[in-house]
Amino acid sequence: MKHAAANSMESPRFSGIKTFMRMDYTQDLEDVDFAVVGIPFDTAASYRVGSRFGPSAIRDCSTLTKPYNPELDVDIFEYCSGIDYGDVKTTPGYIEDSFKNITDGLTPIFKKHIIPISMGGDHSCTLPELRACAAEYGPVSLIHFDSHYDTWGPYFGKPYNHGNPFSHAANEGLLDTSASIQVGLRGGLYSKHDTQLSPDLGFHVLRATECHKIGPEAVAEEIHKVVGSHKAFLTFDIDYLDPSCAPGTGTPEIGGFTTYDALTIVRALKDLDIVGYDVVEVAPQYDVGQITALAAANLMVEFMSHIAWKKKNK
Amino acid sequence: MKHAAANSMESPRFSGIKTFMRMDYTQDLEDVDFAVVGIPFDTAASYRVGSRFGPSAIRDCSTLTKPYNPELDVDIFEYCSGIDYGDVKTTPGYIEDSFKNITDGLTPIFKKHIIPISMGGDHSCTLPELRACAAEYGPVSLIHFDSHYDTWGPYFGKPYNHGNPFSHAANEGLLDTSASIQVGLRGGLYSKHDTQLSPDLGFHVLRATECHKIGPEAVAEEIHKVVGSHKAFLTFDIDYLDPSCAPGTGTPEIGGFTTYDALTIVRALKDLDIVGYDVVEVAPQYDVGQITALAAANLMVEFMSHIAWKKKNK
Amino acid sequence: MKHAAANSMESPRFSGIKTFMRMDYTQDLEDVDFAVVGIPFDTAASYRVGSRFGPSAIRDCSTLTKPYNPELDVDIFEYCSGIDYGDVKTTPGYIEDSFKNITDGLTPIFKKHIIPISMGGDHSCTLPELRACAAEYGPVSLIHFDSHYDTWGPYFGKPYNHGNPFSHAANEGLLDTSASIQVGLRGGLYSKHDTQLSPDLGFHVLRATECHKIGPEAVAEEIHKVVGSHKAFLTFDIDYLDPSCAPGTGTPEIGGFTTYDALTIVRALKDLDIVGYDVVEVAPQYDVGQITALAAANLMVEFMSHIAWKKKNK
Amino acid sequence: MKHAAANSMESPRFSGIKTFMRMDYTQDLEDVDFAVVGIPFDTAASYRVGSRFGPSAIRDCSTLTKPYNPELDVDIFEYCSGIDYGDVKTTPGYIEDSFKNITDGLTPIFKKHIIPISMGGDHSCTLPELRACAAEYGPVSLIHFDSHYDTWGPYFGKPYNHGNPFSHAANEGLLDTSASIQVGLRGGLYSKHDTQLSPDLGFHVLRATECHKIGPEAVAEEIHKVVGSHKAFLTFDIDYLDPSCAPGTGTPEIGGFTTYDALTIVRALKDLDIVGYDVVEVAPQYDVGQITALAAANLMVEFMSHIAWKKKNK
Amino acid sequence: MKHAAANSMESPRFSGIKTFMRMDYTQDLEDVDFAVVGIPFDTAASYRVGSRFGPSAIRDCSTLTKPYNPELDVDIFEYCSGIDYGDVKTTPGYIEDSFKNITDGLTPIFKKHIIPISMGGDHSCTLPELRACAAEYGPVSLIHFDSHYDTWGPYFGKPYNHGNPFSHAANEGLLDTSASIQVGLRGGLYSKHDTQLSPDLGFHVLRATECHKIGPEAVAEEIHKVVGSHKAFLTFDIDYLDPSCAPGTGTPEIGGFTTYDALTIVRALKDLDIVGYDVVEVAPQYDVGQITALAAANLMVEFMSHIAWKKKNK
Amino acid sequence: MKHAAANSMESPRFSGIKTFMRMDYTQDLEDVDFAVVGIPFDTAASYRVGSRFGPSAIRDCSTLTKPYNPELDVDIFEYCSGIDYGDVKTTPGYIEDSFKNITDGLTPIFKKHIIPISMGGDHSCTLPELRACAAEYGPVSLIHFDSHYDTWGPYFGKPYNHGNPFSHAANEGLLDTSASIQVGLRGGLYSKHDTQLSPDLGFHVLRATECHKIGPEAVAEEIHKVVGSHKAFLTFDIDYLDPSCAPGTGTPEIGGFTTYDALTIVRALKDLDIVGYDVVEVAPQYDVGQITALAAANLMVEFMSHIAWKKKNK
Repeated sequence: MKHAAANSMESPRFSGIKTFMRMDYTQDLEDVDFAVVGIPFDTAASYRVGSRFGPSAIRDCSTLTKPYNPELDVDIFEYCSGIDYGDVKTTPGYIEDSFKNITDGLTPIFKKHIIPISMGGDHSCTLPELRACAAEYGPVSLIHFDSHYDTWGPYFGKPYNHGNPFSHAANEGLLDTSASIQVGLRGGLYSKHDTQLSPDLGFHVLRATECHKIGPEAVAEEIHKVVGSHKAFLTFDIDYLDPSCAPGTGTPEIGGFTTYDALTIVRALKDLDIVGYDVVEVAPQYDVGQITALAAANLMVEFMSHIAWKKKNK
Repeated sequence: MKHAAANSMESPRFSGIKTFMRMDYTQDLEDVDFAVVGIPFDTAASYRVGSRFGPSAIRDCSTLTKPYNPELDVDIFEYCSGIDYGDVKTTPGYIEDSFKNITDGLTPIFKKHIIPISMGGDHSCTLPELRACAAEYGPVSLIHFDSHYDTWGPYFGKPYNHGNPFSHAANEGLLDTSASIQVGLRGGLYSKHDTQLSPDLGFHVLRATECHKIGPEAVAEEIHKVVGSHKAFLTFDIDYLDPSCAPGTGTPEIGGFTTYDALTIVRALKDLDIVGYDVVEVAPQYDVGQITALAAANLMVEFMSHIAWKKKNK
Repeated sequence: MKHAAANSMESPRFSGIKTFMRMDYTQDLEDVDFAVVGIPFDTAASYRVGSRFGPSAIRDCSTLTKPYNPELDVDIFEYCSGIDYGDVKTTPGYIEDSFKNITDGLTPIFKKHIIPISMGGDHSCTLPELRACAAEYGPVSLIHFDSHYDTWGPYFGKPYNHGNPFSHAANEGLLDTSASIQVGLRGGLYSKHDTQLSPDLGFHVLRATECHKIGPEAVAEEIHKVVGSHKAFLTFDIDYLDPSCAPGTGTPEIGGFTTYDALTIVRALKDLDIVGYDVVEVAPQYDVGQITALAAANLMVEFMSHIAWKKKNK
Repeated sequence: MKHAAANSMESPRFSGIKTFMRMDYTQDLEDVDFAVVGIPFDTAASYRVGSRFGPSAIRDCSTLTKPYNPELDVDIFEYCSGIDYGDVKTTPGYIEDSFKNITDGLTPIFKKHIIPISMGGDHSCTLPELRACAAEYGPVSLIHFDSHYDTWGPYFGKPYNHGNPFSHAANEGLLDTSASIQVGLRGGLYSKHDTQLSPDLGFHVLRATECHKIGPEAVAEEIHKVVGSHKAFLTFDIDYLDPSCAPGTGTPEIGGFTTYDALTIVRALKDLDIVGYDVVEVAPQYDVGQITALAAANLMVEFMSHIAWKKKNK
Repeated sequence: MKHAAANSMESPRFSGIKTFMRMDYTQDLEDVDFAVVGIPFDTAASYRVGSRFGPSAIRDCSTLTKPYNPELDVDIFEYCSGIDYGDVKTTPGYIEDSFKNITDGLTPIFKKHIIPISMGGDHSCTLPELRACAAEYGPVSLIHFDSHYDTWGPYFGKPYNHGNPFSHAANEGLLDTSASIQVGLRGGLYSKHDTQLSPDLGFHVLRATECHKIGPEAVAEEIHKVVGSHKAFLTFDIDYLDPSCAPGTGTPEIGGFTTYDALTIVRALKDLDIVGYDVVEVAPQYDVGQITALAAANLMVEFMSHIAWKKKNK
Repeated sequence: MKHAAANSMESPRFSGIKTFMRMDYTQDLEDVDFAVVGIPFDTAASYRVGSRFGPSAIRDCSTLTKPYNPELDVDIFEYCSGIDYGDVKTTPGYIEDSFKNITDGLTPIFKKHIIPISMGGDHSCTLPELRACAAEYGPVSLIHFDSHYDTWGPYFGKPYNHGNPFSHAANEGLLDTSASIQVGLRGGLYSKHDTQLSPDLGFHVLRATECHKIGPEAVAEEIHKVVGSHKAFLTFDIDYLDPSCAPGTGTPEIGGFTTYDALTIVRALKDLDIVGYDVVEVAPQYDVGQITALAAANLMVEFMSHIAWKKKNK
């Protein structure tokens, strides 16, 4: 393959410039299957800020991950060429300008049908990502792991914040909500009305209590049923995980999921036609022993494994 | 309702004076259904101290919670008027004096049949709380979540410490131990004799191994069976939770429970006749990302939801 | 006095609702000499964010401070009535809207010639504070402690960020720069041109190397010379202090000052005609043992002491 | 018994010199059943270092544990005499020299058929432990809890590191791999070839996905089947636990196990003929609230309980 | 010498049981010049608690210190036999009982004219230390480094807390206050009256502003003048140091002193007739990189150096 | 210039791949004046390990530094082309092999008379750096900032550790010790003999007590006197700084220096003929708010400024 992770047999994993998995840092998109992209933007966060340092933290501990995925029996770089594309530009303090930067930054990747694996940043980032995605693919299915619906309306009279990217995305026609699903939702709400926002937009919803009851294998089946053969975008808010597994995030919610649960579901989605991925809301200031960033890095490697698995098994 | 949480649509959740849920801070008890009360006292702790800062830490992150509880389908402040009563006085370094302060502080609340939701402080605080409770209601059932029995005898020849509030409470006649239950007990003991202390006082006991085996729904049923229609006091030692979920506590015990387990049990107790609640032993010096304090705050919101649910469904 | 700090002889300093010094929380401005105001806003920060939690952190440890200032021989509440006014509203993620909120929030205080002692938030907050100030008093002197000039131009094509409040303030006519002084400036710059921005706007400048050489007493004399009898606004960026004394800040600069240096200068300014104060850029996520927030709280108590000293000695 | 833990009824658990459980510190091996031994060595760690401070951290919080094990119904010091033997010597920076120190340090213990309960240190320490063990007992069964196989080959052309103690041990004839089992393995690998290293050496392997599916009771049964009545050595890499339960370790892997799972398996192994134990890879620099060290200390107390249980029930 | 620190040429400094400097742990007082004693007691702390873990933290990093003091040109163990006496008993939660324990614990040491070097614990511990001291020596001079006077009266109607040991000591006749001096005092007070408490008891006082002005050499001269040839007790509250140097303490005060300042003064006191020493108020929960505990350990080694210097130069 | 730092006017400083100052990462040495080189090696550390993560931590916060140095009035990249050369290879756990890697890694840089600015790693790294240096330049002067002499002999019978690089360097003829100076030395020693090791090798020595007395300007003059016009290598152990300024290091010593002191001395050395620099012993696991790494990054920018200043003023 043209681009691969650094060989840890040649230099220790703690050494070298910290790109994701110590892959090549380049913006040359020739012969590339997937591109890791950082989106260091947290201006739209409503509570704790700091996820602008998420991409750095994830890259830093990504060197602990390895290229052969024994659960899917696939070696990522045997089948794929992958790069660290660096960070898209952002304009700290200015949401709309940053959204434009983000969409512009991802557009060349989507245009070449390279699969972006983005690292937020707060969850608002997914909106401009989806704008770039839909420009190439039209409305896609959304596979959305989160403790929050993120389909609110305006806040303090302003249009954008990290609690409403998916109402915007639905209303802008970027999503096929009838083939989209939100998984893991929990925690209190401002009113009963909030539980209707997603269904009213057409989303399927699996609340955390249901997920806990049916288990991760059944959750993965539900996702398959909803998404089917649609082109899809997978967005993973790290607060889907329980605060014990992911303390380093902006708006943690208790009663969440283990990383084993998340891995089980994600691995089972390997055959879906996913054209873009992100992991968002890693705020390293609140983390311990980098466990939150490490969870994010591992999920990203699972996403890469999807891509390799499909190339191996097609 | 006369008193409600601040409206997070009007000011961001991270702003303002940090009362619990940014409710009104008042000691006016007219038209009040429940009162959050801080008990910043840790002089009776036998190992790590620091839970005197528990109430501040819990208030600080309580602003992340929200008033509509989707699991119980109830909006707390649609049915209830609730306040932050502030902290009761304490005399740091002096246990007996502080106990008197605590009992005196809670008495007006119990007298008006307002439900106190107290935040410790170490677990010794529950003894003077129960003294105020029993003065109004007579002996009550105890619903006790903990990793420790807390029914020891004297320590170093002195009567009081955070390991023995419930032997005192039982011996003082504050409890109907035959309708009381201790849940989640685990960890080593000083001798076999320690396992008999609670049964000898009449308490029902569900050790952690049993809880893990039967699951939270069955635990909730056991509690229902024991407590029935008795008036009850619910005390939640945060070390019931596993150290992964609650590292910020004085005497953590491995092999504990997730917050999902705790939420499941607590929600199922909504119909019991509980006249007082507390959460104790949050020691923020040992916490990470405030996850322990956040668990405590969320449990307190579940307690409020009990009260609202009963008003809605009576 | 009408409003004073809580009496720590009546309840321990770690207890109670955490207003600043446990003063009364009120927005009633009758018979008030100074008002502590929180400005939880960090959207304009260019590097580390998190100072939106600055006011909470400062209030939390302000209870360690005490009302009698032995260096100025004055008991604050013997001469002054002071309140915690709470936080002004902000619109997280939107700078211009928040600036309007901040100006509106402070206007009633300035209008009544009450002296606001504000807690940021990032340094951009001082611009809307000065707008409220100048509306009442006209252009004022600025006494500016900082490691950065904060007189830059636009950034990424956008007008506002925490590196340029004072070029805006100067250009808007809010300041009499000829009677204004910046103290403690140090660290690298993007180009030599940056050293001319403040002088070109008319500010007097004392770089850190000069301050270290002449010592704090001489620095205070320089400030007196520049400010004279003008009405003045004192703004204290906590990164004036060395990172060893204030690690919890957004853009720390080595080679800074001790808290003793800062106290020495600030105390010597007691007789200046200062109509407003702020302390900004406390980011508690990066702090240890609350020492940064504690430094901020102590500086605020010195500001209060100025006010009391003038009332005592007029 | 000749040697027992300090009596916490006589001095508070936080006081005194921090030997393990405040047992006697001695190197007199007369009338001793088990000896806690520290191995402060981390030179062979491939990623995060710092486990040289593991023994200190584990001793420090071991005082929270207690001598009566209610699950096994045994009081350790009623049946056993146990000591803290101190730390074996090591030569920081030099692996082979340190290995010799470690083997020499443990030899007198094994020779007297005292059971060592060692605390690493990185996992390479288990190799010289096994050299001492096999010198007395011949090849033993290995019961190996870990997220990694630790059966790699050389690294950077050098023979030893913490990823390959068990290929050395197998090749040196220290183990009966046909009666040995590795449990909990997970995470990515450098290539598919890595999954064959352990089976090729003869080890039985239970990967984490299987363990999660069959549950801890069934895992314990598998271990019984493999080990049977062989003399065995139990080695517990703390990264068997999930990062949420054990963030303080060198190479954490998500998707791991709770402490309840670990306790359940370990308790079920009480009747096996285990002649040596260790817990390794506790790196306190990355821990929070000492939860990782506490898990290690508790596991060690379970190991002691095995020994006491066998003496009680033989 | 009979007892000395472990030889770091034989085992690495991070290894072994953590007594102070890895000296022998014994309560045999034959042929002993000084004894390190832990006093793990913090029940009398008025704000942050946690100094009960101070002795453990100080012992833990004391292994970084070394026995030859180049400033005094003396090798401690060439002239002195020193031991770690362990911790005195305490009764957590009960001040008076603990005071009796502490006095009883130190009495045998003073009786043999061995010099105790104690580690608190909160500053109240010095009172029972002085009771043991005066029983042997009669009233002594006090050399008191602190940011607080610690000569208050009762608090909340109770006699003892860590803010008043020296008013008790003076009133009990344990001190010759006319030959006693308090150094480093600073920070706010509750009222002007507080500044008179110490002078009224007869203490000499050097406030921090004076110390900063005259420098450490002159401070040492002042101490010499006051103390002269009296037998003296030196008590060092770690909050004498600036919070940047000692964040891990209960009631930090800004505007403090560097460790270089402290070392300079302490070294200059080598020829005084000091019969007992302590360092108090190290609260490791608030520390970073153990710098507070390390400062304490180094000061204790300076105290040992005094003793050795006197033996060398007598 | 061919290679420069990223322009922070084009992308925020927190974004992008974290090379030092976001300079180009390349190993192409054409048209390069200085090269930043990481040496992630800590196997020779005698106490705390972890400085293998030093280069990552320093790069991470180096983005806070800026290219124009107002004290020297020079814009680095106006006069210099500089690169981040990445990390040299190391063999974790094996000192001699790693030394060879380090020497080999730096040789091409020295050969082209490019000035390396290396980041350790423990202080042993300087020995192989000097081997590469002397191969090109012959014996050089050493300008050595440290709290330790680092001229010990073997430890535990082994030749190399981070306490003896300069006895090796002197004995190997890599240094002209008569033109070399060690500055800032302090702390205890194992014996008086240790104070003679450096003088016996011919080094000039300025102990910390002298440095504190004469002040940084005079220290710089001493260095000038000793070094004169010799080619020199400057090595800066971050523990030269006081623990308050640099807690994140392996063997901190109290009584140290502020960053202002260090900056003052280093800036005054701008005209010396320094052919190589390093900063060592940053251990980020023990840091707070990155202040230690930030100090290191700023010192490195001062070193770059030396090079630019000489090009500007030659």
